Amino acid sequence: MISASNALQMRLRKLGVDAVLFNTSEHLPSINLRYLSGFTGSDASLLITAHEMRLFTDGRYKSQAAREAPGFRLHVTRQKMESLARILARLKVKRLGIESARVSYEFVKALERKSPGVRIVDMKRSFVEELRIRKSPEEKRKIQEAAAIASRCCQEILERGLDGRTEIEVADELEMLFKRHRAQGRAFETIVASGERSAWPHGTATEKTIRKGELVIVDYGCVVGGYNSDETVTCVVGRPTREQQKIYTAAHTAHMKAIEALKIGVSVKTVDRVARDAIQKAGYGKHFLHGLGHGLGLEVHEPPRLSPLGRGVIDEGMVFTIEPGIYLEGVGGVRLESLIYMDRDGPEVLSRMPKELIRIEP
Amino acid sequence: MISASNALQMRLRKLGVDAVLFNTSEHLPSINLRYLSGFTGSDASLLITAHEMRLFTDGRYKSQAAREAPGFRLHVTRQKMESLARILARLKVKRLGIESARVSYEFVKALERKSPGVRIVDMKRSFVEELRIRKSPEEKRKIQEAAAIASRCCQEILERGLDGRTEIEVADELEMLFKRHRAQGRAFETIVASGERSAWPHGTATEKTIRKGELVIVDYGCVVGGYNSDETVTCVVGRPTREQQKIYTAAHTAHMKAIEALKIGVSVKTVDRVARDAIQKAGYGKHFLHGLGHGLGLEVHEPPRLSPLGRGVIDEGMVFTIEPGIYLEGVGGVRLESLIYMDRDGPEVLSRMPKELIRIEP
Repeated sequence: MISASNALQMRLRKLGVDAVLFNTSEHLPSINLRYLSGFTGSDASLLITAHEMRLFTDGRYKSQAAREAPGFRLHVTRQKMESLARILARLKVKRLGIESARVSYEFVKALERKSPGVRIVDMKRSFVEELRIRKSPEEKRKIQEAAAIASRCCQEILERGLDGRTEIEVADELEMLFKRHRAQGRAFETIVASGERSAWPHGTATEKTIRKGELVIVDYGCVVGGYNSDETVTCVVGRPTREQQKIYTAAHTAHMKAIEALKIGVSVKTVDRVARDAIQKAGYGKHFLHGLGHGLGLEVHEPPRLSPLGRGVIDEGMVFTIEPGIYLEGVGGVRLESLIYMDRDGPEVLSRMPKELIRIEP
Repeated sequence: MISASNALQMRLRKLGVDAVLFNTSEHLPSINLRYLSGFTGSDASLLITAHEMRLFTDGRYKSQAAREAPGFRLHVTRQKMESLARILARLKVKRLGIESARVSYEFVKALERKSPGVRIVDMKRSFVEELRIRKSPEEKRKIQEAAAIASRCCQEILERGLDGRTEIEVADELEMLFKRHRAQGRAFETIVASGERSAWPHGTATEKTIRKGELVIVDYGCVVGGYNSDETVTCVVGRPTREQQKIYTAAHTAHMKAIEALKIGVSVKTVDRVARDAIQKAGYGKHFLHGLGHGLGLEVHEPPRLSPLGRGVIDEGMVFTIEPGIYLEGVGGVRLESLIYMDRDGPEVLSRMPKELIRIEP
């Protein structure tokens, strides 16, 4: 398997540029710089031409850069822009691709001032994301570990009960457990949404106390080696009402059918439609308020997008969520989310929590 | 006291623009947008003219924006750029200031396409930071609370002992305590640097085990209402050697003298020099490797900068650190950091840990 940075080198001509430049700063880190080079510090530029890969950083990061990005020629400098301009001139770079959403206006202006002969080319947003979409075995391993830790922590939290506790208490304890189990931290602000609040697709935890009879959505993930996991369970405190059970069953059916539909080469739209049709058939079509799922890896949301507007097909090595939901305002909601790795032979579920309605004793 | 956004309105003419525009996105949040409007969501633009203040966001943030930014005219739109262009034309904005380090190149390019008649003006980096430098009573209260929580948590951690524990264990437990005491989380990656590693000014915690006889620097802070705290203590496990005691005393003297020197109107350079002279006199001049302190508030590092290169004078309402350090490679280091609020009558120390050498029983 060739490295992602080598794969990018081979594409430069097709992309119509002599080189591509990435920049990471404290305010605006480039996840693509990290992905391509392995460097995790907070200040660096990465220049990739067809024949060379160079990393520019300052003295603070000298040993870290050498360790994390061994295949890259290292420039340790206090004057990054000047060093960069010198190298661009020496390598005769005429057309330089940048990722315009991940560099500041200030950075590009400074670049244009120092390198007036270089034409800045705004790359398509997806030119590195296309590489990131298929995970290497090493990337899969990290996501898998994050998913396993997160599921174990969720299990532990639910065993402590929910009745009478505030949403924030539950979310905080879950996030503390992530660290105790040696994850780097949470992947995103943990969602704990109970009672009527469970009908809000993005209800982060509040001071609301969880009560008997309520549905509780817990949506969580943690980070291992920079890679994220994401999983959602829905619980009921005590016995579910008939309506609660009904919407749960509808979402569960959609979830299972979507996973069954996962095959290499199937369009992401089709997978979304399989789930959407199931929910429609159960009578809740207009209460499924979002797409079916999203890719994840170094970022919590990255391609592919499984939705009615998604593009492309399911491919080997993809990692993404399957998360149908049904939200009834004033009543409550359910969402079930599994994390999937797409293997050659079919889907592998990386998240570990059961996806049947979880009953918590009050 | 007038609001910061009103103060900015009154400065627009002097700044040479008809309006200023801020943009916050998931990749590149603008802390200045948050500061001026109060809005904490992850997608919005803020337009301020001499007579109007408008906030543009999408449907997800409608109620949140109305609640957090009540004084602002709200535009809820899926097409932010188009709405913005319409308003810029209607208000006859010809010169539009932006903070170029906090907007992406992509954003400015899109703005120029949609509003070809508007001239984009790159504002000085500090045009909002100048307002942020003097904290309001409400801002002070949040920082004070964060500082009090962080000190209390540190106290609790040190009482559990250090000998035989890894740096990471100590850092993780401290960060968990922040949350248990109802802070939003840590302000930055907690530094726990022991033994020879204490000679590294930015040694974040590792798997190294802390041993008897070692100096241990713990540098930590937490967040309350978006505002950060920052404090550092140095401990010794067991009895200090004569050399350890000597460098501690030198840093402690510098720390106390710097705080005594704090008066409204004194230049930040002078305060730095007072501390630097004290360390010099003790024979460790070249081992004080960084500036004396930095401002903080919504960001962990913001103006003023107390260093040989700092500019300006100490002013009422400023919040900043005083943190002299001495680092002897191969031996170890000490750093003492207090968090200061500058009141009319003199400095108020917001951090609560004692600044004498802390001896931890092995």
